[in-house]
Amino acid sequence: MVVTHEFHIACRGFCDMHNITDAVSSAVHTSELESGIATVFTPSATSAITTVEYESGMLADFEAMFERIAAQAWAYKHNERWHDGNGFSHVRAALLGPSLTVPFSDRQLILGTWQEITFIDFDNRHRQRRIIVQMVGE
Amino acid sequence: MVVTHEFHIACRGFCDMHNITDAVSSAVHTSELESGIATVFTPSATSAITTVEYESGMLADFEAMFERIAAQAWAYKHNERWHDGNGFSHVRAALLGPSLTVPFSDRQLILGTWQEITFIDFDNRHRQRRIIVQMVGE
Amino acid sequence: MVVTHEFHIACRGFCDMHNITDAVSSAVHTSELESGIATVFTPSATSAITTVEYESGMLADFEAMFERIAAQAWAYKHNERWHDGNGFSHVRAALLGPSLTVPFSDRQLILGTWQEITFIDFDNRHRQRRIIVQMVGE
Repeated sequence: MVVTHEFHIACRGFCDMHNITDAVSSAVHTSELESGIATVFTPSATSAITTVEYESGMLADFEAMFERIAAQAWAYKHNERWHDGNGFSHVRAALLGPSLTVPFSDRQLILGTWQEITFIDFDNRHRQRRIIVQMVGE
Repeated sequence: MVVTHEFHIACRGFCDMHNITDAVSSAVHTSELESGIATVFTPSATSAITTVEYESGMLADFEAMFERIAAQAWAYKHNERWHDGNGFSHVRAALLGPSLTVPFSDRQLILGTWQEITFIDFDNRHRQRRIIVQMVGE
Repeated sequence: MVVTHEFHIACRGFCDMHNITDAVSSAVHTSELESGIATVFTPSATSAITTVEYESGMLADFEAMFERIAAQAWAYKHNERWHDGNGFSHVRAALLGPSLTVPFSDRQLILGTWQEITFIDFDNRHRQRRIIVQMVGE
């Protein structure tokens, strides 16, 4: 059986990170599936999904790492061509990836104690973001 | 229900990027599944799959990022041991990952407007590549 | 049908890499599923899963890349706040990701000749690690 759920969040861009564990967990509960996998997907080329220990220190460290490998201030060919200034956003999002698949059992996501499903908006402006939770199970 | 599809593409290596969205989309259409998830997988240790805005600026920026963190010209222990010169390819492929899972509904992949499923050949020679699309749904 | 399998491995941390292909392959064999997908998941915020050519040169090169982008010796805000010294572990694990989905057919994982499913413990101490294999198929 397949159950599709979607939700929206308001984002500010510039490595704006959101803990979406509760939203995904709630989608699993209401799906009435006992066990399976939940694919959390962002239909976007400038945002990504992963898991982190969601605390301010780690969030700052993660952003600092992206600044080291794809800094906002650098020149990007994407910007030369499209003049939208978000070349850094595209590189970061493609590296981290738009998709995360999490197993669940007994209607509960299987996650570590400090592990939170996290959405990251890498774009350079405010946006409303749509997130898909596609559950496959029984 | 599970439906397996595979296709092949000719690649040149050295961060050769291919937009494979149409091939994956077509696999979903012909599977006769209404909704589910499509896992796009490269059975290889020197290539990877992600999503990008597929335009020449972004492709160049993405390659430049890999040059900054795992440059082709650097020394690699893999090369010392195997003398095949593709140590940089292995590091890049392992970081980006061989697997992408994309949800679909109404026989259509759920993707952003500018988001394309992209295969990247990181090896240092021409190769024929095999790509698997494993669909699970109903 | 959904089949859940889990296993444990003893890890030393500090980019400790384990080839878990046989364990995942065995889980698929004993599941009695013919074809589907296996999601390999680490319920942890300081470890990750990918595929690599599992040989000592590549393992050293991969660790060297993480040292370049999130070195162990650098200052991290996470460490300032929690004093557990594993800020580098969190950044690396979040970048690589906790989840890998691999297709299987005829009860066999579809992998490249040199491609091995690899667990990486990025933490800074010895730990017993639990790994989930969630299989969905028929």
